Amino acid sequence: MEIKELMKADAAEVESALLGYVGETDPEFGVIFDAMRYSLMAGGKRLRPFLTLEFARLAAAENGSDADEAYGRAMPYACAVEMIHTYSLIHDDLPCMDNDDLRRGKPTSHKVFGYANALLAGDALLTKAFETAAGNELASPGQNCRAVRLMAECAGASGMVGGQVLDLEGESTRFGFETLKRLQSLKTGELIRCASLLGCIAGGASERLEKAAVEYSMGIGRAFQIEDDILDVTGSTETLGKPVGSDAESHKTTFLSFMTIPEARAYAKELTSRAVGAISGFPGSEALAALAESLLSRNN
Amino acid sequence: MEIKELMKADAAEVESALLGYVGETDPEFGVIFDAMRYSLMAGGKRLRPFLTLEFARLAAAENGSDADEAYGRAMPYACAVEMIHTYSLIHDDLPCMDNDDLRRGKPTSHKVFGYANALLAGDALLTKAFETAAGNELASPGQNCRAVRLMAECAGASGMVGGQVLDLEGESTRFGFETLKRLQSLKTGELIRCASLLGCIAGGASERLEKAAVEYSMGIGRAFQIEDDILDVTGSTETLGKPVGSDAESHKTTFLSFMTIPEARAYAKELTSRAVGAISGFPGSEALAALAESLLSRNN
Repeated sequence: MEIKELMKADAAEVESALLGYVGETDPEFGVIFDAMRYSLMAGGKRLRPFLTLEFARLAAAENGSDADEAYGRAMPYACAVEMIHTYSLIHDDLPCMDNDDLRRGKPTSHKVFGYANALLAGDALLTKAFETAAGNELASPGQNCRAVRLMAECAGASGMVGGQVLDLEGESTRFGFETLKRLQSLKTGELIRCASLLGCIAGGASERLEKAAVEYSMGIGRAFQIEDDILDVTGSTETLGKPVGSDAESHKTTFLSFMTIPEARAYAKELTSRAVGAISGFPGSEALAALAESLLSRNN
Repeated sequence: MEIKELMKADAAEVESALLGYVGETDPEFGVIFDAMRYSLMAGGKRLRPFLTLEFARLAAAENGSDADEAYGRAMPYACAVEMIHTYSLIHDDLPCMDNDDLRRGKPTSHKVFGYANALLAGDALLTKAFETAAGNELASPGQNCRAVRLMAECAGASGMVGGQVLDLEGESTRFGFETLKRLQSLKTGELIRCASLLGCIAGGASERLEKAAVEYSMGIGRAFQIEDDILDVTGSTETLGKPVGSDAESHKTTFLSFMTIPEARAYAKELTSRAVGAISGFPGSEALAALAESLLSRNN
């Protein structure tokens, strides 16, 4: 199967599972479930769930267990990490943060539901993520506790939120290359690492595979961010589904503050090669390798 | 020990434990940990942690296990529920929500750290709460998973956040007594119920005690809200630590929309009696009974 088809197939499974978590609307809370679902079902690549599901399969291939079972066991974790990603987008888009009107080609949550309801929809999705992981009935309580702790560490003050704080400071302060890399590792990288490791937990991966998953994730995470920075300059609002040129407008430090576009492309390619190298020794890693390569040529 | 002294003793233990979770500041994330600590350590009654700790003791008395061990095992859960409570206050105070400048006699988080950092500090505390409960090393993974799920259910879209959404609607819509009770049960009651049940989980309570804990919590939760509504009319900014008269100003439906102050006081007293009655059959329930009574005569 081509990587794009595999991603579509996984995304369809994920979206069906997500609807199981936020599909029903108690009319008495109408707007909150509507707002959660609006952002959660707005499409997107479902990159993080893909990592969770495919690392679970890879772990099953490694330890000779049933790949379909590992995939099923990973699904609640895949949904949980997507809920955290979606909450972070809703809060990032709020007027007090990036003040964005458009996301994935649609009006942002606060444009549709109002500022307070968007704030609360983000809160509710973050909360639901932990409920979903802790309530994974196909995994053991020990696995679920590890999943919850990992998610919280990656998403919290020393992880994604810490990166968002640094990012805010970046709007007024100019900082160096090392700080930018650290900021990016926190803001984007940590949740990508989380997604991959959640798959490892669900699949019962060896320490060796977990270590490879971390290396792979750090590589594709940074390459992903570099591509984002390039697309903000070279992309179009139509294909991106959000306004371009916003980094320059807000005087943000990006990878392009330190290198030209061809240099950035070469750097992303090198990071991708290293990421692919990290998992290449594991039988069945072709899908994850293809994913890494495909991210280099994305246009949204 | 008098109830006030017991509450102070428990609060001191809780504050020391909370500092263990958010006390250290990695200078690279300076402001986020500062903001989390600012709100978390701003004092308050520590009512919810008290419920967790005392229900753990009550459960130990019930099943003949060591009360001190149950208390220690309940402490991470007590801290977790206080983190959720604090996050909800930070977000509630934001300009897009209640737009409050004062909380516990101090400027609110966004007044000190700015809008975006206050938002993120709330997000980080909510996240940390789940990390703290899932990482409780004195309890089993099964207990921790149950704690995380309970917290998420009580705090999420069908719980506290759902109540906040209804509360927002209440600013523009007038609603009836049944809806007000439902709103209050969600917005305040659910986290109080959560706190009590977390203690039951930590202490290994029987189903009978859990049921009593729920009844007790619903009673004191509603009585607590009624007192809040009364204090908003009769209190002073000085003792309350926040502006009075804000309900009337924002035309909110409160218990005083349906009854006079003496009637409301009588109703709160009746609810308190029922709450005390629910736990009176359990040896060692005197502290929780005294707490319920003390909430009737509070001035902040």
